[in-house]
Amino acid sequence: MSETDLLTLQVTHIRTLQQRYEQALAECGYDSLLISSGAAPLRYGDDQAFEFQGYGPFLHWTGLTGQEHSWLLIRPGQAPVLWLYQPVDFWHANLELPEEPWHQAVELRFSEQREAPSMARTGQLAVIGDPAFLGEVPGEHNPEALRQALDETRVRKTPYEIACLARANELAVAGHAAARDTFLAGGSEFDINLAYQQATRQPEAEAPYHSIIGVNEHAGTLHYQYYDTAAPAQARSLLIDAGVRFRGYCSDITRTTPGVGEGRFAALVQGLERLQHRLCDMVAPGVDYVAIHRKTHEGIAALLSAAGLVSGLDDQALVEQGVTRAFFPHGIGHFLGVQVHDVVGERQPSPEDAPFLRLNRTLEAGMVVTIEPGLYFIPSLLEPLLDGPLGRHLDRDMIDELRGCGGIRIEDNVVVTEAGSRNLTREAGG
Amino acid sequence: MSETDLLTLQVTHIRTLQQRYEQALAECGYDSLLISSGAAPLRYGDDQAFEFQGYGPFLHWTGLTGQEHSWLLIRPGQAPVLWLYQPVDFWHANLELPEEPWHQAVELRFSEQREAPSMARTGQLAVIGDPAFLGEVPGEHNPEALRQALDETRVRKTPYEIACLARANELAVAGHAAARDTFLAGGSEFDINLAYQQATRQPEAEAPYHSIIGVNEHAGTLHYQYYDTAAPAQARSLLIDAGVRFRGYCSDITRTTPGVGEGRFAALVQGLERLQHRLCDMVAPGVDYVAIHRKTHEGIAALLSAAGLVSGLDDQALVEQGVTRAFFPHGIGHFLGVQVHDVVGERQPSPEDAPFLRLNRTLEAGMVVTIEPGLYFIPSLLEPLLDGPLGRHLDRDMIDELRGCGGIRIEDNVVVTEAGSRNLTREAGG
Repeated sequence: MSETDLLTLQVTHIRTLQQRYEQALAECGYDSLLISSGAAPLRYGDDQAFEFQGYGPFLHWTGLTGQEHSWLLIRPGQAPVLWLYQPVDFWHANLELPEEPWHQAVELRFSEQREAPSMARTGQLAVIGDPAFLGEVPGEHNPEALRQALDETRVRKTPYEIACLARANELAVAGHAAARDTFLAGGSEFDINLAYQQATRQPEAEAPYHSIIGVNEHAGTLHYQYYDTAAPAQARSLLIDAGVRFRGYCSDITRTTPGVGEGRFAALVQGLERLQHRLCDMVAPGVDYVAIHRKTHEGIAALLSAAGLVSGLDDQALVEQGVTRAFFPHGIGHFLGVQVHDVVGERQPSPEDAPFLRLNRTLEAGMVVTIEPGLYFIPSLLEPLLDGPLGRHLDRDMIDELRGCGGIRIEDNVVVTEAGSRNLTREAGG
Repeated sequence: MSETDLLTLQVTHIRTLQQRYEQALAECGYDSLLISSGAAPLRYGDDQAFEFQGYGPFLHWTGLTGQEHSWLLIRPGQAPVLWLYQPVDFWHANLELPEEPWHQAVELRFSEQREAPSMARTGQLAVIGDPAFLGEVPGEHNPEALRQALDETRVRKTPYEIACLARANELAVAGHAAARDTFLAGGSEFDINLAYQQATRQPEAEAPYHSIIGVNEHAGTLHYQYYDTAAPAQARSLLIDAGVRFRGYCSDITRTTPGVGEGRFAALVQGLERLQHRLCDMVAPGVDYVAIHRKTHEGIAALLSAAGLVSGLDDQALVEQGVTRAFFPHGIGHFLGVQVHDVVGERQPSPEDAPFLRLNRTLEAGMVVTIEPGLYFIPSLLEPLLDGPLGRHLDRDMIDELRGCGGIRIEDNVVVTEAGSRNLTREAGG
């Protein structure tokens, strides 16, 4: 999509949000809404602030990550008023705002004050945002019913949002290719992190989440958070889970690369990849996302049997008796948007067989989800299984051999369309 | 210093802290003290946490950055008890703790719970740490008098702390050399940030503060926070202010590099560097740090006159009439330790002529300070001067020419010793 097309879509996006917000305000009995961008809190006991990214509803309207102490006023029938905090300040640079069409769809003002602007004729006013930065602004702060209604406006993405998510995928895919190359060239986790930054042109602090980069057994810690500066003597596997933000929108992609000569592990990666494609193909309007999660367990069961990791138990038994859960302990995915785990995936708790599932809704066109099956060799989950009554069905030697590869996760970002789905990650060449 | 010597010093450090803490507890009427490490808060409205570094007093004892939900109990006459949070958790990796001598100086326990440990016979208990993580633990939370007394225990560094700060300087100096090379080779701010990470082997998230990397006019924004991914057509200057953490201790170093052919700017950098050396030489026990700040203004005045930037006003008038303040608007430096702006630099407010000065105490042996004079071309400060009655004393053309170089800052980390001072940054080859 051309830059011009994207910017035109953004104007429509803002009009759509205006309609959605007007409806939510009317339903909840408010005449106007003030959104605070918030700001980074200070580290406790220190004068250094954390790195700020942004507050969901503010990003939803503006896409302006990192913009602190700003305010957005939404009123029915009127253009949104956006006060951007741009102090005369020789300590920090103000965000350079290139002129873009969406500025015509809002009333854009610059403010040198951090506090809420003074507003006239707001009627029944609601205010949402981090209470730490709302101060004494009048109006009802963070009313729960309205907040829920506004979160729901983020669930079905506009064409602009989908275009941004597609671009965030393209940018991240380049990073994943560089990560893979660096791993195969003998780089450490630390080197891979640098290569990912280099290829995506994204500093760590702006990434939608802390990039997970696990070589060998580290790939078996789901959110492995360190970066070894030395590569292991034998590089057996790389799992990298990393995204990019584009105009506020996040990609969230995972790839697993086997080391040279890791035939058995490579076959498992291939098997999981085939399963992942089938799961992505399930994405369509009307499909219960929990069904995709359950299908994953069936697929993992088949994969475990085919690989010879387990034997003597049929697929159903492997799922029902918790064997697949020991190899695949997390959920199949979540919503994606201006937050990496986008809001309202769970309007009720997830079922007992999917305790970590962050999304359990029936899919609708416009939703964007991740599909991220995994298969890991996690000692704290496998040891009890090996030592228990089911242990005789598991091939301990093979598990011991593969433990040093840590695990596999393959994750794409998929849009639910009227006709079925679009896989933004594969489209981007990922 | 050898690794063994450093580790031996650490044991002595812990004994010294024990004495200092016992005294503070006795003075404030407490029998024991529980320190919470705290943890990273979640971004508001999101399920993603900020990047955690640590709470000062916890780092002061343990040096364990990034260690969340841990607790340290200090009691007179007994070894500190340290509960390190190490859950059986397949989501996150636990910190790998290499066996070191200091573990013998504490009672080290591992805990799978985030909450405070149950403790017997604590007597009058004080608890310090982020209230968000203290929960219902008994004892008096964050009593102000005790907190002040404990902060004061951090002011005079032990030999262990100075050794760590020296090592943090060595590591950062390598990064500054790589940054300079990358700039001179035509790299962008973004490339320079990567080169700094590469050379220091430190990911962005672990840096003691957000590295400031300003090319050209960006060097004139004191805490310039972005990284341009494209280098300018003409690279006129680089200002980089970046540090490294080593075992919790921070370096904080700034270097300014003129671009090729920037003779006038290079001469100013040289002049400021000579001034900076003289200021570092002033550091000694008994010296009022404010006097160093004031001497900086005198030096800046002389430099402005010598460069021809101002004329027709003597040095004293340049300082008194605020001309030097427009070129050098910040303070000459601050304390340095487990926080980059270490605590209790100001027991009373700084004088009117130094509003941004973070340290105004009389220097004592063991204190570690930064010395960071600067000279900037900041439009919002210089324009009012140029347009006012003093404007005729300023060379507008020269200022306009140099504005594109942004500014200069040169910053070292200096220990106050019994005999005078040690410049950790220059010692490290910086």
